[in-house]
Formats: sequence, structure tokens, C-alpha cells
Amino acid sequence: MRRSLALLADELSGEGGEWTVHEVPTGTPILDWEAPPEWNVRDAWIADPADPAAGRIVDFRRCNLHVLSGSAPVDRRVPWSELKEHLDTAPDRPADVPFRTCEPGARWGFCVSQEQYDALAARGERDYAVRIDATVAPGSLTYAEWFLPADAPKWPGNEPAEVLISTHVCHPALAHDGVSGMAVAAELARTLAARPGRRFGYRLLFVPATVGAIAWLAANRDRLLGDGADRIAAGLTLACCGDDGPFTLRRSRRGDAIIDRAAAVVLNHRDEPSELRDFAPFGYDQRQYCSPGFNLPIAGLTRTPDGEYPQYHTSADDLSLLSAAGLGGTVGVCAAIFDVLEANRTYVNRKPYGEPRLGPSGLYAAFGSDPASAAAQRAVQWVLNLSDGRHSLLDVAERSGLPFPAVARAAAALSAHNFLTEPAAGDRRPRPARFALPATSCPR
Amino acid sequence: MRRSLALLADELSGEGGEWTVHEVPTGTPILDWEAPPEWNVRDAWIADPADPAAGRIVDFRRCNLHVLSGSAPVDRRVPWSELKEHLDTAPDRPADVPFRTCEPGARWGFCVSQEQYDALAARGERDYAVRIDATVAPGSLTYAEWFLPADAPKWPGNEPAEVLISTHVCHPALAHDGVSGMAVAAELARTLAARPGRRFGYRLLFVPATVGAIAWLAANRDRLLGDGADRIAAGLTLACCGDDGPFTLRRSRRGDAIIDRAAAVVLNHRDEPSELRDFAPFGYDQRQYCSPGFNLPIAGLTRTPDGEYPQYHTSADDLSLLSAAGLGGTVGVCAAIFDVLEANRTYVNRKPYGEPRLGPSGLYAAFGSDPASAAAQRAVQWVLNLSDGRHSLLDVAERSGLPFPAVARAAAALSAHNFLTEPAAGDRRPRPARFALPATSCPR
Amino acid sequence: MRRSLALLADELSGEGGEWTVHEVPTGTPILDWEAPPEWNVRDAWIADPADPAAGRIVDFRRCNLHVLSGSAPVDRRVPWSELKEHLDTAPDRPADVPFRTCEPGARWGFCVSQEQYDALAARGERDYAVRIDATVAPGSLTYAEWFLPADAPKWPGNEPAEVLISTHVCHPALAHDGVSGMAVAAELARTLAARPGRRFGYRLLFVPATVGAIAWLAANRDRLLGDGADRIAAGLTLACCGDDGPFTLRRSRRGDAIIDRAAAVVLNHRDEPSELRDFAPFGYDQRQYCSPGFNLPIAGLTRTPDGEYPQYHTSADDLSLLSAAGLGGTVGVCAAIFDVLEANRTYVNRKPYGEPRLGPSGLYAAFGSDPASAAAQRAVQWVLNLSDGRHSLLDVAERSGLPFPAVARAAAALSAHNFLTEPAAGDRRPRPARFALPATSCPR
Repeated sequence: MRRSLALLADELSGEGGEWTVHEVPTGTPILDWEAPPEWNVRDAWIADPADPAAGRIVDFRRCNLHVLSGSAPVDRRVPWSELKEHLDTAPDRPADVPFRTCEPGARWGFCVSQEQYDALAARGERDYAVRIDATVAPGSLTYAEWFLPADAPKWPGNEPAEVLISTHVCHPALAHDGVSGMAVAAELARTLAARPGRRFGYRLLFVPATVGAIAWLAANRDRLLGDGADRIAAGLTLACCGDDGPFTLRRSRRGDAIIDRAAAVVLNHRDEPSELRDFAPFGYDQRQYCSPGFNLPIAGLTRTPDGEYPQYHTSADDLSLLSAAGLGGTVGVCAAIFDVLEANRTYVNRKPYGEPRLGPSGLYAAFGSDPASAAAQRAVQWVLNLSDGRHSLLDVAERSGLPFPAVARAAAALSAHNFLTEPAAGDRRPRPARFALPATSCPR
Repeated sequence: MRRSLALLADELSGEGGEWTVHEVPTGTPILDWEAPPEWNVRDAWIADPADPAAGRIVDFRRCNLHVLSGSAPVDRRVPWSELKEHLDTAPDRPADVPFRTCEPGARWGFCVSQEQYDALAARGERDYAVRIDATVAPGSLTYAEWFLPADAPKWPGNEPAEVLISTHVCHPALAHDGVSGMAVAAELARTLAARPGRRFGYRLLFVPATVGAIAWLAANRDRLLGDGADRIAAGLTLACCGDDGPFTLRRSRRGDAIIDRAAAVVLNHRDEPSELRDFAPFGYDQRQYCSPGFNLPIAGLTRTPDGEYPQYHTSADDLSLLSAAGLGGTVGVCAAIFDVLEANRTYVNRKPYGEPRLGPSGLYAAFGSDPASAAAQRAVQWVLNLSDGRHSLLDVAERSGLPFPAVARAAAALSAHNFLTEPAAGDRRPRPARFALPATSCPR
Repeated sequence: MRRSLALLADELSGEGGEWTVHEVPTGTPILDWEAPPEWNVRDAWIADPADPAAGRIVDFRRCNLHVLSGSAPVDRRVPWSELKEHLDTAPDRPADVPFRTCEPGARWGFCVSQEQYDALAARGERDYAVRIDATVAPGSLTYAEWFLPADAPKWPGNEPAEVLISTHVCHPALAHDGVSGMAVAAELARTLAARPGRRFGYRLLFVPATVGAIAWLAANRDRLLGDGADRIAAGLTLACCGDDGPFTLRRSRRGDAIIDRAAAVVLNHRDEPSELRDFAPFGYDQRQYCSPGFNLPIAGLTRTPDGEYPQYHTSADDLSLLSAAGLGGTVGVCAAIFDVLEANRTYVNRKPYGEPRLGPSGLYAAFGSDPASAAAQRAVQWVLNLSDGRHSLLDVAERSGLPFPAVARAAAALSAHNFLTEPAAGDRRPRPARFALPATSCPR
């Protein structure tokens, strides 16, 4: 895991963000937990002393999933009758080695394919030399964060709000459910760093699942509560985002936070299908960030979700599942979602009585058959019509059904031509409830 | 009807509840009405004096529906031309005798099958002896109630709130639309009485339709208004609940009262289909309990509803329509709904920051493939996540889609292990509006 | 256009309303605009001097769409190579002359069918005499309004609220998209004038699209803002309402204004299909009336909408598209919608405890098989049940799913029999939020 973080540090060096690796000593209280002891493994194998020719029958060097993650060390001779109690398999994936974990040092064990298991069983009752060269010892819990500050110093309040992106780094041996999140986050960091005029700071967290997120929350608890309650404006957990599967958004606990709405607007305008799911308090670290004490507006973005593809948590979750298009498409969707956050504003139409004369400003192309200009005109009319100080551009995109970028372009042009102004701080009226108009007049 | 009540009294004696029969003297004002005069019938027949061998051509002793319910007495000779004006039939059910009623004493009449009518018509014009030995006279309107007090004396307020169950007893000659409600209510009474620790009192009403419910409301009006407005926490009218048809819930006038939501959660988790209908101010006594002045949170539960099966209100609505499974299933659904009311509470997660450590408490089985334990873990996580003093367990069941019993078991375990506490009375914040998340981000 | 208004004046004379024609001098500021110069055309043609026998190859007298609307005058000889740059066609409708417009005097041009264009092109390069006898000069912008006052002088506030009906009169050469609105509005005026006891005043606007609506809003701005904000209780823009297509309602910007709800209730109870669309800030003058500064509760009613039929904005949009049934049906639907506004009230049930005794009042026919009386009874029960001072008759119609007229008849009968009273002005509680009951209990 630390090697992964080192590679990420190289990738992100020189991008302008600040890279920090945190080491939390074993036993440090982190919310309701403690930083666990460190587990390190160097080598592991199963051999048959009576059959040296067979060599390492199970060999950590060939596949590091062969060791139960967190396994206690062992260096003994054990009969098959005992050894088989220490072997985990995935019977429904006979050729693949499963990924299994235990509390550090709780027990010792190997993970093997069902085929390996059957071959061992076929050799009958005999003794085996088993070796797991691992240590479970005090050390530290490691996680890293990369922070890219906002350009705009004048965000309401003393400092800009932040967007949080979190991905887990605790099983880099898996591809779709492991490195894909790290790869997308790193590329996303580069994309964000290349953008001028950011209103938000962007904080990328590279954490071991659960304990890492809990450690970050513990370290930042005071920043996030009380006055800091709105410090995190939005966020995403990223995982399983490297294949070509459709995007799946898991909404935040709030259900209608701006991240939920922005992601929906972006996903609904792609020509590929995607799925919006309500929040659920499990799966990855959304359940930590969205725990009731924090209730952060953080949604979860995946392509084919964890547990919903056959290779999940086996040695078959390898690079063959990933594609450049899949990884790059995820970067693009994340960037588009953050574009919505950056561009979203609430305006007041300075000429709210009737339709203003746009011709002189050159904004209003003569009506023509050019669909692009027609679409642009529709966006202009929607922004003018709903800009009453109560509807944000996101509200406009939602109600008009237009793509957000078209709405934002229209607003920028109108603003540049002085048709729009921002509401006085005191005058910012609450936006009206979003009513779902009944299909018929009966409210049933 | 009084014989039915006597049988019910026997059934319920010794169950611990309090049985009361109320006699409301004819003419007593009951809300906008008056207790009607009593109608009693002893015997009735149609015979042909010229054909004594034919005996009783229509005979009350064979089917008591033969007499128009409420019919005035008669003892005359009438020609066929006159008699036929006093005969009611159900032409679309030629073999069945219809059930018809009139204002007591308003007219005299018989109900016969279309086949009987045709046979009489075939006999041609002749005189008949008609006899209806009935009386319409001052007496009393009779209804009964059975009250099972709550065990818990410490319900907020001076006395526990009540759950009301009402069924009509006015035409025991019909099975699905008559005795099924009485039978289910009686068995339900036994089930409730066997439960310790009831937070609610349970009041079962056995009333003649309309006037009986109105009489009870009149007698209890002051208890139900003003300070007593919340005395009835929930309720059900029970009728047509003995066949094997799917359950149909008619919501209360409030539409989202706890009874409506609890019933929906229970019905939606059965593997048989069921139907939820919005309130409508007709059919049975829901329209009395849900009249605007009382607006009690009382829903209506049936299986195949009144008027939606061919034998409705005919002599064919007999025991052949009922089944033990149908009757027992209704008892079970009612009990499950009341379980929701009894178990529903609002908690505060005492460890709301991140995911608390459940392992030590033994609550958290090691992740395994056991679906049952996985489901239990999901319920535990949902309860912890939504227990912020604003979501009840019913809210948790609704949002999670988990069966209420799983949610309640999780809450009980979490509470026993001190993870949950009840919010301070003053601190009970209103629960957030239940938003229906749009399928897409467009609020249209 | 002025001839159209003169015809309308004749049609409406003696109907009791007040007819006013407004002339707004060219250059008068109207909101963000100015009244444009007048464009008048007397004659126009294209001829071939070398082929006098051919006569007028393009002749305004045959089809007045041949002149680009707003065209500058011209009287020249031009070679085909130049002329063809001044010809507009509708290639996808080869036999039809398109309707095209430009800013008054911005350019000169003819509109011809593709077939005419091809015939001219076949004649090869040669000179043509072109003549457009038109003027673009200071004058006035003309629009008319017809106001029918309310009969009831005692509408809350000093004067009765108004219902606005607006239709465009700027291209009477088109039938469905032109004269149909004028014809329906005129017939509707007669229908409204014939009704006694109107609670609302009715104001019909006959305006050139966009500038006419803007001119009226400018002239009435002060009446419509501030204290006058509720002066316009409801309204409709009428256009494309003469064919046999299904009705399409475009909701007001408010989305749930009483006009939106009344129109939905009416359209949902017709046996023909109809479509309800959310507001969109384009198409006809709804976008002026619903601009954010005014936000008037004005919906748009059409049959086959503009741009959704192949003859749209061509010479084929002629009387053959219209039918008496289509025009008359639109008048009927408008009248039915305004019936809802006129009859809508909020009542309090004077006997709210249980079901009142309706028999003595004769309101309650003995239960029978007559479906009409059964429907009437249902309406009576719904009105009694929801009349708690918080539900209007429109709310009753929406929740019950009954036709509004049945609800209104029931309310009138109940009111006549003293079962209903109007809430004291101070006691008018807000109507409860219209909740959309979830299909299942899970708010997902």
C-alpha cells in the first residue's frame, strides 16, 4: 500500500497541489476505533517435504492473494487434515484465488483456487510445510491526502469550501476494485490542477477502507462540525470505476444534496445508460462520511459496482477488466460534475418585465434552422425566465431538461452582456420547493 | 345480531379485556341522527291457499334473507299482480336470494331468487297468503366493545393511547361480508391479549354499520376531541376479510397516518400481492371515523372488497367463500401491523461519528456468506445511520426497504448494547419531509 | 390586421363587454422595447418584361404570403442571379409558400413555393421586374382588448379579479396558427357574456405576438405589480386551436396555479386524449406574461401545437385545417375551465361529526342501481368529507377523481340545504400540502 502511495506521489508531484502522507501510530484513538497494528508480509508458501520436486505448491510470489490478508505468521509442518481447515476457496470460480481478510493476526490461512484445493486433496493425507513470513506489530496506519486550493479567495466566508474525493488503496492487487480508483483520482487531480479560477478547493483522500476514512474524520472532526458544517460542499467516493460498465451513482444520505443533483444532471445527459441509486449505509466509505454525526454531502460513483461482477474479490479482478476508455470516461464524468459545482450560481434577471431585447446585444441570432443556435436561444430564454434570485443554474438545468453546459454558457453570455446580476447577499430568497408535477391533476 | 354478540362474549371471556354491551334507547340523539326503532322478525312465508300441497313457497326458515331487512309486518291475501311489486330479485344471479334493506317499517317485501320469481310468475294470476311476523317498535340500538388496556402505564400523557378496531355485525347471515370481520376480530383479540408489554390499549368495536359507529362516536365525542385528539393513535375497520383474495388497504383520510404507513410496510413485504388505495369517504364505517370533525387515523382492511365479488350481498356469500387460511392470514397481518405500532420508536445513535465498533459487542458477526446475518448487519447499519432523533424505525424501514421486524430486531439489539438512546423529550426534532426522489434529476 | 380587429369589433358589439383599440405610436417605449414602425403592403409581383404573356409570375394578389413580412419596398429590374437571393422557399413542402418575417424594412424579399422557384430557375438567367409596394414608416402599434366586467361587486378587495385570454392577430393569412385563436376568443366572449353572476371580469387581448403583449404589459405594469399582484387570477393564451387535434396545455410558470389545476381537471375528464406539458419560456406570449417580473398565472392552450403539424407557417395552413367541431370544442373546454374558476370555493361542513342525515333533506336518494344517483351520492360524500375550511372544491375534484361539475353540483345542493358554510375570512386555514402518495410505502 505504501508503494502505491509513493507511485501516486510521483504522479502528482508538480501538479501544484499539496501531498501529505499521514502516519497514525498503532493504538491511536480514531473516533470509536483505534489505529490497528501493522500487518506486513514478505513471503509465503506451501510445500511437500516428501516431494521436493513439486517445489512451492502454493506460492505467494506467484499471487499475493494466496495469503489471507491479515494472516498470523506460521512456520510449521501440518497434516492435510489440519491444513485444509486453513484454506479458503471460491467454489463458484474454480480457477480463481479469492481475496479474503481477517483481523490482523486473528488466524493464519491461505487462499487458493478450488482447482488447487482439489489437487491437494487428491494427494491424500500427508504432511505439508507451511510458511507465512508475516508480522503483526505496532506501527502506523497510513493514508495520504492531496489538496488543491481554490483560486478564488473570495468565497463567502473566510476560506473556500472544499470538494472531497476519496478512494480506497488497501488492496492494490485488485484492478477494478482497487487500482482503478487510484488511477482515476490521480488523473482527475491533473485535470483539476489545469483549471484556472477554481471556486472550490479539492481534497483527494487515498485511504485504507473504513479505518482510513475514520482516521481522516477523526483528525478533521473539529473542522467539519459546528462552524465547519458547510466546509465540505460536496464529494464523491470513487471505486470500481475502470471497466466499461454503466455509471452507478449512489446518492448521499441527504438524497438531494448538490452533488446528488449535479451528478444526476450530468449522467442523465450522457447517451450511455446510467443508474441513480438512493443512499445506503454500506459499501465503501460513504457510510463513514455520511454517518449521522457528519452527514457530509458525499455521493458514491462507480461503474459496475462492487459485488455485481463475477470476478469481484478474486484474482480474476485484474487489468484485463480495465480499459483506457473506461478509466478516462470516469475522469470525464467527474470533471463534468465538478464543472456544474464550479459554474452553478443564482442570478437575478435585470430586465424581468417581459422579454428583454436581446437583438442589439447580438445574443439573439435571427431565428433560423440552425439547431445549435436554436438550443442556445432556448437556454438563454430559460435562464432569463428563472433568474429571479431563487433558482440556481442547476435548478434551471433540472427544470428545462437542457444540458448544464448549455445553461451555463447562456448565463455567462447574459452576464457578460449585463442582463444578469447576482442577488444581494441579504436578498437571496430560498429557492422554492421542487414540486414533482402530477401526471394528472389528481394528487394521488 | 344480539345472538352474535353473545357468541362473541363467550369467545372473549377470560381473555383479560373488558366486554361491554351498550343499549342505546330508540330515539336517543346520536350526532346528527337518532337511535332507530328496533326491527325484529320471527317468521315469514308466502303460500298458495288454493294449493296447500305446495306448502311454504317462500320460507324465512329456509333462508332469512327472504325477508326484506327492516320490512313492515304483513298478514294478508294479495293477488300476484300486487305481490310481485313486493318481490326483490338479483337477475344477474338467478339462483341466489339478494340481501336488501329498507328503513325500518318503510314498506313490506320479500327477497327471492330470480328462479323463484319466474316459477311464481309461471303460476299465473292468483291470490297468495303472505305473512311477515315482524315488529318495528321502540327498543334499543345495540353494539358492543371489548377493551384491552395497555400494560405500559408510562405512555406520554396521562393514559395510554388506543388502537381502534371496528367491524360491523349487522348482517351475520352473510359470511365474507358479515361474520368474517367478527371472527377475525375475536381471534385478533386473543392474539393481542397474549402479548405482554403492550404500549397501546386496544378497543374492538362490534357495531351495526353506520348507526353503530355513529352511536359510539356520539358516546365518545368528548373523549376524542380537544385534549383527546390524539387518544386514538391508529385503527382499522375490518370487513370482507375471510376469503383468499389479496389484501386491500384503504388509507385513512390523512393519507400518511402511521396506520397507513405501517400497513403499507407490512403488506409490501408479503410475497402475495396486495393493493393500497387512497381514502374514499364511503364503504363501511371509515367514513364515520374519518368524518372531518373527528378525522381519526383509521384505515380500512379487507381481502376481496365489498362489491368486488359476484356473490356480494346475496345468499351465495356463505361459508364456502371463507377459508381458515384466509381468516388466519388476516389475523396475522393485523397482528404484524400492530407489531409495527408497538415497536416503532425514534432513537439517537450515541456514537454518530463514523461507524461504531460493533465487533466487541458481538453484534457484528464476521462478514460471512450467511444471508441472514448479512441482512441483520444491513438492518444494524441502517438503524445506526438514520437514528438521529428525527427518523423513527418506521422511517428506517420505509427508506431501507427492509422488513420492519428486521429493523426492530436490530434496534433492540443496538439499544440493549447501549448504542442507542431515546431523544430527550424537548429534543425530539420533527422528522424531515419524506421526499420521493425523482427517477431523473429533472423535477418535472 | 386592423381589418381583423374591425371584424372582431363587429362580432363583439352588443355583447356587453367594452371594446377598446389601442394605438401605440411608433417609438413609444414599451418595457425594454419600442413600438416598431408600421409596415403596410398594398401590392407586389414578379414579372418578366421579355414575356408579357406570362403576366405576374409571382402575384401578391393570389397569396399575400408571397411577400416577406416586413419586407422593404422595391421597384427594380434584377437579374435572376440577384433575384434568387431574395426568394425564400420551404423545400420540404414543394407546393406551399412559406410564411417568413424580418425586421420591418431590414431587407426585401419574396416567399415562393419550391415549385415556383424551380420553374423560375428553369427559365435561365434573365432580368425580372420586381415590385413590392410597401411602406415602413412611423405610425402605431395596434392591439385591442375586450373587457367583460364581473357581475359580483363583492369580490374580496375593491374590485373583482380578472381572467385574461390572449391571442395573437399578427398573421391572419394563416388559419390554424392565426384566425383560429381570434374565432375561438370571439365565440368564447359571447359565451361568457351570456352567463349571469360572474365572479371574475374577463379581459380578451387581441395582440400582435410579442410586441403586442409587451405593449399591454407596459401599459398595465403598475396595475399588475405591488397591490395588483393578484389582480389577474388566471389566464390562457389561445392559439392553434381550430383543428381536430388533441388539446395540449402548457402550464404556467408557477406550475400549480389554479389555471393549471383547473385545466388539468377539465382535460382529464374528457374522453379524448390530451396532453399536459410543463411551462417553457417560448412559444407565443406566455413567455411575456410569465416573465419573472410579472409571473402571471397564465397557461397556454392549443390543439395541435405550433410547429407540430406539417403545414405550420406555410400557405397550406388554410381553412381546410379547421373544423366547426374543433373550434367549438375549444370554446367548450375554455368555458368548462372558467366554470371551475367561477364555481370553486372552500366550504366548512356544518355537521362534521360523522355522516349527517341527508335523507330528510331529500338529498340522499335511497340507495339504488341508478349509476347517476350513485355518482351524485359519491360527490356529496366527498364534499362533506373534505369541507373542513382547508380544501377547495378543486381540491375535492382532484382527490376524488370526480368530474368538477359533479362536485360543484353536490356543493351547491349541500349549500342550499344548509349543510355547508363558507369559512370566516380570518378562519381560512391554508390548504394542506398536496402530497403524492407513494405507490408503496418506501419513499426510496
